[in-house]
Amino acid sequence: MTAIKYDLVKKEKNTKARLGVLHTPHGDIETPVFMPVGTQATVKAMTPEELKEIGANIILSNTYHLYLRPGHELIKKAGGLHKFMNWDRAILTDSGGFQVFSLGPLRKITEEGVEFRSHIDGSKHFLTPEKVIEIENALGADIIMSFDECAPYPADYGYVKNSMELTLRWARRGKDAHKNTERQALFGIVQGGTYDDLRKECANRLVDMDFPGYSIGGLSVGEEKQLMYHVVDLTTDFLPQDKPRYLMGVGSPGDLIEGVIRGVDMFDCVLPTRIARNGTVLTSTGRLIVRDAPHAEEFIPLDSECDCYTCKNFSRAYIRHLFKANEILAARLATIHNLRFLTRLMEGIREAIKQDKLLEFKSQFYKKYGYKEE
Amino acid sequence: MTAIKYDLVKKEKNTKARLGVLHTPHGDIETPVFMPVGTQATVKAMTPEELKEIGANIILSNTYHLYLRPGHELIKKAGGLHKFMNWDRAILTDSGGFQVFSLGPLRKITEEGVEFRSHIDGSKHFLTPEKVIEIENALGADIIMSFDECAPYPADYGYVKNSMELTLRWARRGKDAHKNTERQALFGIVQGGTYDDLRKECANRLVDMDFPGYSIGGLSVGEEKQLMYHVVDLTTDFLPQDKPRYLMGVGSPGDLIEGVIRGVDMFDCVLPTRIARNGTVLTSTGRLIVRDAPHAEEFIPLDSECDCYTCKNFSRAYIRHLFKANEILAARLATIHNLRFLTRLMEGIREAIKQDKLLEFKSQFYKKYGYKEE
Repeated sequence: MTAIKYDLVKKEKNTKARLGVLHTPHGDIETPVFMPVGTQATVKAMTPEELKEIGANIILSNTYHLYLRPGHELIKKAGGLHKFMNWDRAILTDSGGFQVFSLGPLRKITEEGVEFRSHIDGSKHFLTPEKVIEIENALGADIIMSFDECAPYPADYGYVKNSMELTLRWARRGKDAHKNTERQALFGIVQGGTYDDLRKECANRLVDMDFPGYSIGGLSVGEEKQLMYHVVDLTTDFLPQDKPRYLMGVGSPGDLIEGVIRGVDMFDCVLPTRIARNGTVLTSTGRLIVRDAPHAEEFIPLDSECDCYTCKNFSRAYIRHLFKANEILAARLATIHNLRFLTRLMEGIREAIKQDKLLEFKSQFYKKYGYKEE
Repeated sequence: MTAIKYDLVKKEKNTKARLGVLHTPHGDIETPVFMPVGTQATVKAMTPEELKEIGANIILSNTYHLYLRPGHELIKKAGGLHKFMNWDRAILTDSGGFQVFSLGPLRKITEEGVEFRSHIDGSKHFLTPEKVIEIENALGADIIMSFDECAPYPADYGYVKNSMELTLRWARRGKDAHKNTERQALFGIVQGGTYDDLRKECANRLVDMDFPGYSIGGLSVGEEKQLMYHVVDLTTDFLPQDKPRYLMGVGSPGDLIEGVIRGVDMFDCVLPTRIARNGTVLTSTGRLIVRDAPHAEEFIPLDSECDCYTCKNFSRAYIRHLFKANEILAARLATIHNLRFLTRLMEGIREAIKQDKLLEFKSQFYKKYGYKEE
């Protein structure tokens, strides 16, 4: 008995897009889905109720950050991450792999695991595939990730191959260490950089280990968009139809559409929340830097087509004022809007899959929004 | 026809406390009332809906800040402050007097008005009593304040007397300039420092001018609490029973109770919102610095007696984590709680007035909360 179950509802006629339902211990999720990122046990600036209002059924939280602060033991004492942050819908935790490898000179990789220094206080830590599972078990997310090495881009074939082999050994160790399989589903992560044969091999060998879901990692790390789409397209060909596929850390509007077309079911990205806090919003006609002067006297919503709380109640002029005055409400209103924009986009994508009109949806979206490599 | 009407519902038997209803163009307000401060057209970290949920029927906003940014002309174009910030209940604007005088060497006072430099960009401005009314008319708050000089403390008798005379001349000029009397009620501000005869004279001469309400200004600026209470007590004796009295900038829990006992109906203070953002909350057993280490593993609400959203849904441990991690939600949750704490305190005070038990209420409150000069 696994913690989650993926029902493939429908395949789109003209693309590899899939409509599905992901059943988790904390509710069902229609896929394809975008997961807002709650790095430190909170989606920045949002309450759980606001997340529900924008239509979020699953969020992501970061193991690396929670391990360092407040610590997984404390969250376990609180009754787990759901209870700690008062979120009763599904949660996915990453493995910390990407964060730890992003530390650069502050970390050292061995067969056993990774030694690194905390970005908060410089303290020394050692994470192994087993330790990461122990932490993720303590946090108690519905979906958890294997510890992986996220190779840099560009990297030569030999490096990426060794890194992939290490990731595969770590996936096995993590799977063996995972005890709470009935409440938490452990995903394997496909690595292999931008090398087709490595991606294929990694996918096949992970599928042989039989995980309840598969992630595609190591992308959106500097490579060209078309190369990323190619790797995604290739990788999903080797993943089973009856398991969910998650493209890690990807989430611009264009990337979501292109990812779905290539058979991806789940996405996460800090983009909508991060740019919101800096005064940039996503609208049906493209990005808008609402904090800029041209919007000072625009008494219209951020996006006239949007149904979010922000667009129903406040003008660009007011939101721009809040940004100029460094008011917390600015970040709140822009975050609500950007997350709602992406959940509405995913609703539109799912509807288009139902009608076998995803390519029309895409061309109409790009025509209005503009396709930008962002 | 004036914009507001004050109905005195009941006088408490043992004190000068008054139960009343203040009718405004944007709804009725039960008094005594605490008004949350929304300096820059937003109560920091809060939405209008959240303010309603904590029971706020009137908020204060600052003319000085809005004049400088985004400018009263822009807010007028937006349809006024209510519409600009999407708040359909009552608003009171101060006159900017206190803010301008707080600028110290950056301002110069003459009979005509005050020249000062903006704290934002150093630009030069000149405010007169007439200009302030023009600005407040553009903002469109239900209750507006005369431009006054807020004398420093301590200040010698001669200075304070001259300052009071200037404030009286400016009150007259403001009253003559005020055009929108049917939608906006202009209050006179009693000054006079800590000199009994000056307070009495200022009150009497303002009452002769017949304002729809009276403010007590220039207090809580460094004087001893007992001296402040004495001045309030003395001043309210010279104010009419059929008009509301507003004690400006005062709002610690103890000050609210002591002010009500001395006949005050309205209060405002940045204290609850400001300390909230710094990680300090008001509870039935006193102040709590929730960001401090002792609360790291307390899986209980900020205040077990509180009915606010924060206390119903989140633990001290979680809120402490949010503060340590510099998360926006920390400020939000603490602000909601502190404002609800004060609106609940005012509800308790009003109930105690009804029952003629305000002094018992006070002693019970102090016994639990502790009386602190804060």
